[in-house]
Amino acid sequence: MSRFLSSRFAAMIPYNTSGDKSPSDDLIRLNTNENPFAPSPKAIEYAHSASHGLNFYCEPECELLTRKLSEFLNVQSSEIIFGNGSDEILNFIFTGFCENGAIFPDITYSFYAILAEFHAVKFETIPLDENFRIIPEKYFALHGRTIIFPNPNAPTGLRLSTSQIETIISHNPDSLIIIDEAYADFSGETCVELIHKYDNLAVIRTFSKSRSLAGARLGFCVACENLIQDLRTIKNSIAPYNINAMTQAAGIGALEDEDYTRENIREILRTREFVREELVKLGFEVLDSSTNFLFTRHTRISGQKIYEELLRHKILIRHFNQPARISDFNRITIGTREQMQLMLEALREIIGGNY
Amino acid sequence: MSRFLSSRFAAMIPYNTSGDKSPSDDLIRLNTNENPFAPSPKAIEYAHSASHGLNFYCEPECELLTRKLSEFLNVQSSEIIFGNGSDEILNFIFTGFCENGAIFPDITYSFYAILAEFHAVKFETIPLDENFRIIPEKYFALHGRTIIFPNPNAPTGLRLSTSQIETIISHNPDSLIIIDEAYADFSGETCVELIHKYDNLAVIRTFSKSRSLAGARLGFCVACENLIQDLRTIKNSIAPYNINAMTQAAGIGALEDEDYTRENIREILRTREFVREELVKLGFEVLDSSTNFLFTRHTRISGQKIYEELLRHKILIRHFNQPARISDFNRITIGTREQMQLMLEALREIIGGNY
Repeated sequence: MSRFLSSRFAAMIPYNTSGDKSPSDDLIRLNTNENPFAPSPKAIEYAHSASHGLNFYCEPECELLTRKLSEFLNVQSSEIIFGNGSDEILNFIFTGFCENGAIFPDITYSFYAILAEFHAVKFETIPLDENFRIIPEKYFALHGRTIIFPNPNAPTGLRLSTSQIETIISHNPDSLIIIDEAYADFSGETCVELIHKYDNLAVIRTFSKSRSLAGARLGFCVACENLIQDLRTIKNSIAPYNINAMTQAAGIGALEDEDYTRENIREILRTREFVREELVKLGFEVLDSSTNFLFTRHTRISGQKIYEELLRHKILIRHFNQPARISDFNRITIGTREQMQLMLEALREIIGGNY
Repeated sequence: MSRFLSSRFAAMIPYNTSGDKSPSDDLIRLNTNENPFAPSPKAIEYAHSASHGLNFYCEPECELLTRKLSEFLNVQSSEIIFGNGSDEILNFIFTGFCENGAIFPDITYSFYAILAEFHAVKFETIPLDENFRIIPEKYFALHGRTIIFPNPNAPTGLRLSTSQIETIISHNPDSLIIIDEAYADFSGETCVELIHKYDNLAVIRTFSKSRSLAGARLGFCVACENLIQDLRTIKNSIAPYNINAMTQAAGIGALEDEDYTRENIREILRTREFVREELVKLGFEVLDSSTNFLFTRHTRISGQKIYEELLRHKILIRHFNQPARISDFNRITIGTREQMQLMLEALREIIGGNY
């Protein structure tokens, strides 16, 4: 640490990207919930076209992209803001909208706690139940604290219905509710339409997963105009040109090629159900999944052991040592059918005949 | 404003991008100091190649790009961090390194004051002298406050020598000194090498101007390892995947095509000197420029009038109403030779025979 860093950051433990990284390049990476399919050819084509004009600044308000998305979602342009990944939107939220503190599940996206620590936001976590589910009633009457959770939740893959989420919103008229829908395209259910009914709801989404643009960094938030205007104030105060021109173009291309996205989602869901069945045959307990990953533990073999043995087979999945409740689980991204066959073969070898 | 925004942002006036925008598309844009030349073909090629793999997350530490740049600058990889534009680095600085307040010139990049307001950093400005120069002695003994200014300064285009900057650094052992070298490639002088002598210096640079990548958003900071480690703590706490994969690739391509950058810089400097001479003939006072723009006022015609008349001729330059001291000046980006010929023709018509 230098002499110049503000003392309040002295003990800051930042997001650890090492869990996301491949220790080597020749691995099958099933650890970060990436889409196994390349972006839409249209996304690639538009990004390429934009690259020729990179000597000019990108459009600071993402006007064309915002208009396209507003048509797609059936909301107004004034109800959308884009971020350099949904991480940036989350940072705006923890920067400016958590004055009364924040609430999120004990098992969820680990970045929330880091952002809360960073911005000195007091937070409390609410435990998932014994089946790893969010219990809506536990989120009633939180008195102005900002509530945030992913739906479907990660790493569990479980989701609440839109009507369950609505009960949380309607029971907390003085709280801002942030629903992080990173994986919602795989569940087919979204609460975006509720933004027209509630001024205390913001929905965060991303082009990373279903639209194969994780490396382009494109997330967005949908909420009532007043909330978006506030987010714009924050964005224009610290990051006016936050979305580069190639990413804006790729996003437009992806939205113009919805059939491609839909077909990839269908294929991932088909593969997911196939993998689930095979895992069950191998003695795994598999949580319901509304996402492009499975959260699973073996009835006899530890999560750590499964993780290590798969790594020896050049297959990388995600293991969580903490919290202890999930330390026997692993999170497995659904890759291509071929990748999953290789993983299942490796698991058969690892587990042997003893199941 | 919504009910949920923290009260401290209620009066926040964010960066106004409207001064950067074209009111219409058929203008010659000489208002944002963009490079008139497209990015290196190699930058475009590499970005395109990266776009095929956007379904995977970008590398969070920009390892390959950092290594390339470290060789180019003759510093260690551990002495470099990249930002989503140098704006993001500036945001990190005002977030974490201004506990004792900040000092910058009264006439400078307007974003500093916005970041300071946003982060509740107390700041003081030091007036430029009557020739619009930074006087190093006025920056001596600032007792732990963070000092930041561009060198060359914007919008004046004037610069301090490296030895003048060194006097500021050595007189302020308890202050962090941030030198924003956005335009340094046009002056040919940098204080990057001083980072090995002083642990209280950070140099911020960008690929936006000389390397024609404004729309890709790629800035970086060079400083001693401890400072970079602190910046990394901040970055990994709020924006772990801040540089998208296409921009990382474009940056590598640009660094591998240094001849292209050098030739573009030479051409811009030749054009700048030609334009300067012509402006003087037309009755303009032109400040020395170490950048890709000229800061100039006419001896008889107001800055506002020049700006408006050029706009009627479909040429957009940058006019500043505030502060009053510079309201008769305009900042003119050096475009292509042809664009500048058109601008000079328009000015001849505007000014007529009366000079």
